[in-house]
Amino acid sequence: MTLIDRRNFHLFQPLLYQVATGGLSPADIASPLRSIVKRQRNTCVLQAEVVDVDVASRRVALATGAVDYDTLIVATGATHHYFGNDGWARRAPGLKTIEDATKMRSGILRAFELAELCDDPTERQELLTFVIVGGGPTGVELAGAIAELAHQTLERDFRSFDPAAARILLVEGVDRVLPTFSEPLSAAGSRSLARLGVEVLTGTRVAGIDEHGVELLRGERRERVRARTVLWAAGVQASELAAVLARRASLSPDPSGRLVVERDCSLPGHPEILVLGDMARFDQDGRPLPGLAAVACQQGIYAGRLIRNRLRGRSTPGFRYRNRGTLAVIGRAAAVADLGPLRLTGYLGWLFWLFLHLMLLVGFENRVLVFVQWAFSYFTRNRGARLITE
Amino acid sequence: MTLIDRRNFHLFQPLLYQVATGGLSPADIASPLRSIVKRQRNTCVLQAEVVDVDVASRRVALATGAVDYDTLIVATGATHHYFGNDGWARRAPGLKTIEDATKMRSGILRAFELAELCDDPTERQELLTFVIVGGGPTGVELAGAIAELAHQTLERDFRSFDPAAARILLVEGVDRVLPTFSEPLSAAGSRSLARLGVEVLTGTRVAGIDEHGVELLRGERRERVRARTVLWAAGVQASELAAVLARRASLSPDPSGRLVVERDCSLPGHPEILVLGDMARFDQDGRPLPGLAAVACQQGIYAGRLIRNRLRGRSTPGFRYRNRGTLAVIGRAAAVADLGPLRLTGYLGWLFWLFLHLMLLVGFENRVLVFVQWAFSYFTRNRGARLITE
Repeated sequence: MTLIDRRNFHLFQPLLYQVATGGLSPADIASPLRSIVKRQRNTCVLQAEVVDVDVASRRVALATGAVDYDTLIVATGATHHYFGNDGWARRAPGLKTIEDATKMRSGILRAFELAELCDDPTERQELLTFVIVGGGPTGVELAGAIAELAHQTLERDFRSFDPAAARILLVEGVDRVLPTFSEPLSAAGSRSLARLGVEVLTGTRVAGIDEHGVELLRGERRERVRARTVLWAAGVQASELAAVLARRASLSPDPSGRLVVERDCSLPGHPEILVLGDMARFDQDGRPLPGLAAVACQQGIYAGRLIRNRLRGRSTPGFRYRNRGTLAVIGRAAAVADLGPLRLTGYLGWLFWLFLHLMLLVGFENRVLVFVQWAFSYFTRNRGARLITE
Repeated sequence: MTLIDRRNFHLFQPLLYQVATGGLSPADIASPLRSIVKRQRNTCVLQAEVVDVDVASRRVALATGAVDYDTLIVATGATHHYFGNDGWARRAPGLKTIEDATKMRSGILRAFELAELCDDPTERQELLTFVIVGGGPTGVELAGAIAELAHQTLERDFRSFDPAAARILLVEGVDRVLPTFSEPLSAAGSRSLARLGVEVLTGTRVAGIDEHGVELLRGERRERVRARTVLWAAGVQASELAAVLARRASLSPDPSGRLVVERDCSLPGHPEILVLGDMARFDQDGRPLPGLAAVACQQGIYAGRLIRNRLRGRSTPGFRYRNRGTLAVIGRAAAVADLGPLRLTGYLGWLFWLFLHLMLLVGFENRVLVFVQWAFSYFTRNRGARLITE
């Protein structure tokens, strides 16, 4: 078995926003791949980038070298999508990698540092205005964390301005935040955000982004908001490898670049190629499954079972996603959890979120480290990993 | 009171080598400056770079703006020194900043990753050879940590080679490692290094460094060692600001670029400018004080007392460094401590080292986090922060 990844670690993306806001260190939510499969002596890890797949001769081409396969599992996820406005990428970075997170952290903290050095009130307010585009779980979590950072963690840190003056705007195109959640939960999330001081702008689209702010479109009304920091949590598209595979297997990807897969997660015409997670489009009950970690995890377990059954000459029923619930955290003691019959908000939702995310982290050491940092931050409101680095 | 720093955090440099070898995260050994002085309402922190000092009009020039002073304390430390071979800087990076450490960590780990992908035995051995230049505490600590990483942490991580094949060479110009320690301790250090598998080359100088290795000079004999990773722990010189100050105050720095200071740590002719730490040359008992954190700490406390006394119109006796001991750690359960009458080696020295460094860390949270990681690494020999990042 060969595991190929261009990075040498597994990253627990759901907590990336905490790295971006100085609450956790990158290594706390990452685990070296070699550690994870250390005891599986039949597994070889290669840190390499896949540049092509020859589906006919069953060979993966790496930047240097190639690897033959009998079965290929592709799960390279998704990246940011700027809906055709690729120029926005530089102004409004997204959050998918460790480097995205440390860069975002430096950008947010530097805005406060520059505000302390700034004499001009208009420019200072521009520095202290943060716009988050996209009201899904990532956008909500980021907005909540920045509001907590500004209004609580940094409360007594500056001398020439009051961090309470920081404005955090969350921009969402449809008429409510957390649109994939039920309406009551979405409303509860909205209230929690307001309590933290986040200004929620629903029914609002971004028409432009430049170095001094964003141009917003609310119905017919155009509005300009001066903001030095704009963060992107709006769109994702399948990673580049999906396009390569589509070309090689003569398939057309869906509008988000995802590969449409069969009931057993395989590529049409290629039962030996399984595509999982954010880069796969799997329709269930007439709708595509959402791009959630839970979907990818269940597909991973399914793929393992499928391969084992095939080796034993047994058949496997098609994949079916079981929705065990969705969660979003807004801030300290505030989260929403949609667990089917059970709906949790506020403190209870938050405790559930904490517990679940601790358990989902890979490795006991990371769990302890994250727990210690959450405990400290709960009691002191401090965020210790507030480093501005290059 | 105004604290000016180009970084937004205090860095505990003595543990930087643990970040460089994947044992700790950057934030574990760094504390945001604003957190540290949060409760001192009369202290203002500016994240800015000092570009000049006008000693006549008592004004510090920043990249943008300027700050007037009555008393100026300058303590900007030291940087690497390549003894005139500035071209070596790119081939043999040093370890002074967080970025140095994460880059060194990526470089070391990437060498192992490339070795796993490599088919050519000569090239693989080149990838698995690490040369550390300089046998002082930093070089010894780095060499020990890389040896532990290769021979213990990564022991079962690779399939195409045995990490035990990794060679770690420590090159020192004089005839023993840890030359500032007593001879018995230096010998104990050397034995511990050998036990970890470090090859110690004393009486050896570096004559050249290129992308495939180093050229060593042992007496008259020239020897070439093929190594992809060369790390610099040999020379330091005072930071650039020392040269600026020397020029402005018409003084000549010493050969290491340090400013020669008076008994009260002030610049000759400028009692209102105090120079502390690695950038100051303070002669005591006919010898310059070594560039140790302990010296800088004691000078910092002295400077505070001096200023308070001056404000009260009292005089202060000259500064005197009290050597409370020096320490170097070689690896797991091995350290040497020179505490005057008391000399500790092995396990006991190591426990003392652990305790002292935990206590010296700024902030209770960082102490707990470092303790947790040390405990895990002691029992599992794992190093969780093994991330290759850009």
